[in-house]
Amino acid sequence: MMIGILGGGQLGRMIALAGVPMGMKFRVLDPAPSPPAIVAAEHILGEYEDHAALADFVAGLDVITYEFENVPVAAARWLAERVPVYPPPVALEAAQDRLAEKTFFQQLDVPTPKFQAVDTRTDLDAAVRVIGLPAVVKTRRFGYDGKGQMALRTIDDVETAWERLGGRPLIYEQLVPFDREVSLIAARGVNGQVVYYPLIENVHVEGILRQSIAPASDLTLQSLAEDYVRRALIQLDYVGVLAVEFFQVGQQLLVNEMAPRVHNSGHWTIEGAATSQFANHVRAISGLPLGETRTPCPAAMVNAIGTLPDAEAVLRIPGTSFHDYGKSPRPNRKVGHITVTAPDLAVLDERLKAIGAHSFHIRTICRPRLPGGDEKK
Amino acid sequence: MMIGILGGGQLGRMIALAGVPMGMKFRVLDPAPSPPAIVAAEHILGEYEDHAALADFVAGLDVITYEFENVPVAAARWLAERVPVYPPPVALEAAQDRLAEKTFFQQLDVPTPKFQAVDTRTDLDAAVRVIGLPAVVKTRRFGYDGKGQMALRTIDDVETAWERLGGRPLIYEQLVPFDREVSLIAARGVNGQVVYYPLIENVHVEGILRQSIAPASDLTLQSLAEDYVRRALIQLDYVGVLAVEFFQVGQQLLVNEMAPRVHNSGHWTIEGAATSQFANHVRAISGLPLGETRTPCPAAMVNAIGTLPDAEAVLRIPGTSFHDYGKSPRPNRKVGHITVTAPDLAVLDERLKAIGAHSFHIRTICRPRLPGGDEKK
Repeated sequence: MMIGILGGGQLGRMIALAGVPMGMKFRVLDPAPSPPAIVAAEHILGEYEDHAALADFVAGLDVITYEFENVPVAAARWLAERVPVYPPPVALEAAQDRLAEKTFFQQLDVPTPKFQAVDTRTDLDAAVRVIGLPAVVKTRRFGYDGKGQMALRTIDDVETAWERLGGRPLIYEQLVPFDREVSLIAARGVNGQVVYYPLIENVHVEGILRQSIAPASDLTLQSLAEDYVRRALIQLDYVGVLAVEFFQVGQQLLVNEMAPRVHNSGHWTIEGAATSQFANHVRAISGLPLGETRTPCPAAMVNAIGTLPDAEAVLRIPGTSFHDYGKSPRPNRKVGHITVTAPDLAVLDERLKAIGAHSFHIRTICRPRLPGGDEKK
Repeated sequence: MMIGILGGGQLGRMIALAGVPMGMKFRVLDPAPSPPAIVAAEHILGEYEDHAALADFVAGLDVITYEFENVPVAAARWLAERVPVYPPPVALEAAQDRLAEKTFFQQLDVPTPKFQAVDTRTDLDAAVRVIGLPAVVKTRRFGYDGKGQMALRTIDDVETAWERLGGRPLIYEQLVPFDREVSLIAARGVNGQVVYYPLIENVHVEGILRQSIAPASDLTLQSLAEDYVRRALIQLDYVGVLAVEFFQVGQQLLVNEMAPRVHNSGHWTIEGAATSQFANHVRAISGLPLGETRTPCPAAMVNAIGTLPDAEAVLRIPGTSFHDYGKSPRPNRKVGHITVTAPDLAVLDERLKAIGAHSFHIRTICRPRLPGGDEKK
């Protein structure tokens, strides 16, 4: 089977590396001359909206997927007329616009922070009155990693926010005083089979490691997250891996956003789960049965931002795996990650300290699901 | 780091697929036009004794390894004058000749079946008198998978054996009435760090699945095997993965043979162990610390011989992983393998039955080591 991937970054690389052992072949379309995925994939050099490049790319493919959610929807639709594109382009549309995304979940009766569309200064003032402060104003499209957004604490911030972001389609969102951020990664097959990984706790750290780790996920929270994600999967007739990020407030979960692709918060599944998110994505889009998401040990993932740590120093710590995406160092660039597994959370924490996890920006911690919660369909 | 592999078959492929995520680059030398490893490695097309090809191959490499033990020793030595070759060529020499191999272990005080060199018909008659029957006569070099050997049950077989095999350097070995065949896979780093995987039980099946599975390895047997293998590793100043096959007779272990490379009986480690044999081989030869060999669940590996089974049917069984080496089907050719993991041996056996393991030729079963036996150095 020949699989095409729009985008040849580290996510495309890890998808290909998961599929090659199963005998799959890969081709990526990417405008960069030497993207990370070429270690295990053919490369078509071209822009995503260039029809000649798209035609070269699609020739001989059995199925197409993508590794980033800002794929031009028109290109995805053009390809989908020729070869199946999974996840379906409708999922791209829902994920590319923060207003469409939150409206989508609202229509499924899945809680989100309160939100309101803002196109004019008058809209902004109205949103401040209706939703109140604190809040966050975000551009609806092409925002990521905190870019294109601004938090509003007091009424004085309103004017500044408008100066910085006004004129583009915006969304005004209630700033939720969350206990923690968690994500759920699910995969759905062509025939409707669904598997879920355990809830993942995502700790955003700047400079100093936050030692405060909330209690392990209970089955109630896991079931709640699965219920919410299941609604989205069915509504979109989804195929592939879907990641949904939530704010946890007490025992309530509010959707922050979704990513219709494999997700950074699921990288630990390569070593930490019976089947990785990448292998399950490949299995899903190629019509194969999905694999077990069993997670025998707690696992953590630490992103390497800007530069890679020393492999020798990292691998000296038991339970570590080292991932180098083959990218040149650059500030704020994700150039690799480290997975840490351990028999229990105390040892996991020791190992995280030993690799100096405080020097990295993002830390994801997965806890194994409690007994009885495994392998739901 | 740029790693060269002599041979681009499925073992080279799995070595490269284990190293690429760590940022390693690979180049294989292989006389076949499109060997399995090219999915993740550059390919130099050439014979192993062609100095022009060897010169092309070695240019820019940091370290060289090999994926089969019949690499010409002269080529390995020529390369080793230019770039480190691991495992060391002396290990190749010991492994390529059955007489040298058994003599090597004998000198280390490691038990083997009784053996004697046979160069002439007179030698053969002498060996029959001294060692007795039943026995097996083998060519000393280039035998594998039962080729180049013949079992002798009665005195009448002696003449037939001489007719078939005589004239080449032979070895006469006592035919040991073993309880089972087991193998131990170890890895040793440049700095002398050693890790061992749990003992693996290898069941050779023809047509019908043998349901008789001997009791799980105890720590005594594991320690005995580790002690024997440690002696070989130290004597050879070994770097990389070494596999040693034993006959188990009661609580005694007799060395059958060794392979100075990653081994078919260790393929289950990709899914079944914290660090695969392939990742540990790459870590060893590139001077990195070795990874944990922890094996949380029992695992089995089933070779696909001749043709691949249907991926969809296999992956429908929980706990299975499908490996397709990208080779065209051919009788008696290893074209892929399936790994099965399970929470316990009873479930493992059910799953093996479900994938129809009796239609495959070789089945390897790994049992997790008993508590307290993990992570010895």
